[in-house]
Amino acid sequence: MNPISILPTGIIQQHNTEDTANNRQRLAKKIAKLATQGARLIVLQELHDSLYFCQTEDVNAYQLATPIPGDITRFYSKTAKENGAVLVTSLFEERLPGLYHNTAVVFDSDGSIAGKYRKMHIPDDPSYYEKFYFTPGDLSFEPINTSIGRLGVMVCWDQWYPEAARIMALKGASMLIYPTAIGYEPQDTPEEQQRQRDAWITIQRSHAIANGLPVVSVNRTGFEASPDEKASGIRFWGSSFVAGPQGEILYQAPTDEETEAVVNIDLSRTKQVRQWWPFLRDRRIDEFEPLTRRCCKN
Amino acid sequence: MNPISILPTGIIQQHNTEDTANNRQRLAKKIAKLATQGARLIVLQELHDSLYFCQTEDVNAYQLATPIPGDITRFYSKTAKENGAVLVTSLFEERLPGLYHNTAVVFDSDGSIAGKYRKMHIPDDPSYYEKFYFTPGDLSFEPINTSIGRLGVMVCWDQWYPEAARIMALKGASMLIYPTAIGYEPQDTPEEQQRQRDAWITIQRSHAIANGLPVVSVNRTGFEASPDEKASGIRFWGSSFVAGPQGEILYQAPTDEETEAVVNIDLSRTKQVRQWWPFLRDRRIDEFEPLTRRCCKN
Repeated sequence: MNPISILPTGIIQQHNTEDTANNRQRLAKKIAKLATQGARLIVLQELHDSLYFCQTEDVNAYQLATPIPGDITRFYSKTAKENGAVLVTSLFEERLPGLYHNTAVVFDSDGSIAGKYRKMHIPDDPSYYEKFYFTPGDLSFEPINTSIGRLGVMVCWDQWYPEAARIMALKGASMLIYPTAIGYEPQDTPEEQQRQRDAWITIQRSHAIANGLPVVSVNRTGFEASPDEKASGIRFWGSSFVAGPQGEILYQAPTDEETEAVVNIDLSRTKQVRQWWPFLRDRRIDEFEPLTRRCCKN
Repeated sequence: MNPISILPTGIIQQHNTEDTANNRQRLAKKIAKLATQGARLIVLQELHDSLYFCQTEDVNAYQLATPIPGDITRFYSKTAKENGAVLVTSLFEERLPGLYHNTAVVFDSDGSIAGKYRKMHIPDDPSYYEKFYFTPGDLSFEPINTSIGRLGVMVCWDQWYPEAARIMALKGASMLIYPTAIGYEPQDTPEEQQRQRDAWITIQRSHAIANGLPVVSVNRTGFEASPDEKASGIRFWGSSFVAGPQGEILYQAPTDEETEAVVNIDLSRTKQVRQWWPFLRDRRIDEFEPLTRRCCKN
């Protein structure tokens, strides 16, 4: 693995429909376009092949799940190879009938599966009923080795946990990557919507700062109605972004438009920034045992 | 302890000189002013009695250290009692001759010492030679019980560590409080200065978000020359702020002016926000053991 300094990173923020074949074909076209523009790493949004089906608990949605490897991974494997780019995908994994995960699969530029990450933190809130569908991951927080570096890939809800980001950094991740599906509750006030989106950006920037690493976060965009007529659907807030190792925003997509972009990430800044801000030097690990507890109150 | 909903919180951002008696008298006046305005909690900046003496390694600076309790704590004890406010101070503690800490002392509104916190993470960078002066704290990350709540008091460099904030939250802190001394290196570019200040705000807002807690951070302001003629001094960037439990900024002081302010913090929002964003519910503690390691690479 040769160390890369400047890594052209492609991100695809898409508005999905219920036509999964079409969603996938549109992604393949955009991947080809970004590769032509020089992208060596391309990151897709969470569960990018379908609608965000977790707005309700519906056993029919399991039809969307795929074995790994399977036809879907063969499709993305071919796409990665044809475009010579490392590809971070997010799939609904059928591990066994009745056992499902929310799984990021990373394809290397030769089309091989470099590794997978099973979402560790599973949310469950109104409109995000993920605990119904996904068993929490059992592959730990383990960066995935690729030809362009050791990628700290996680998924959505993981992004709210500084512990997860730190472990990826301690295990030698060269960057953090979060495929995501998050949006506004249409009935919230504009102020509350703004606070939530701002908190989402802030917490991920803070992982860059605390760990001196770039962060890539790719979210979906557009409105998806809920199958439950009493629920008001989700307006996904887009805002996919790339931050450098001081948390500085290098690129940010609009909230409400499909977007593809290539962002140059200077991986050599990690070492510089960590020398200026030597946070890893001073961690009080002798006093961090409480982090492995649920709570310190009985 | 009656649960308080709205907590009027005073912060004092001061420009210090080498006249410690005058620094202290000015603080006492401002404390009285804020108490008159209703403040029930008042937070001072880091090492608020003196210049930031850690710009060089100088044994003469030990003259500034104080035993706890001692004349200095008696002064602040009296000040807290006279004003009926809980007071968070930041002192240079002489524990034994030859053994010193950077210690936050919290006075309850009756003048008693509610508790102390010895800075756990000690920085050491050009112009911030703290490892020369301060032994790392040995009181763990332990919130301090007061008549207005259980305060998660830490000091400056601690603010860069999500682990520390999390432990305070798991131990039942009602808010996080950081007396601070941080500023621009005058020779850095304006862009670099802005990135640093922005990172400092962002990482602390992220502790509010991750833990659903208000954060109060109080920094000094103004330029302090270095005793070392080759060094260029520090322009402390002020920007003291209060964030709510979604990381939303409730108040922010200017960069370059002395400021006193009373900010109303709604402590009842913590429970609401944690119910909306139940991050504490889902922490993967079964996989957090690596956090207690220096690094996962040999």
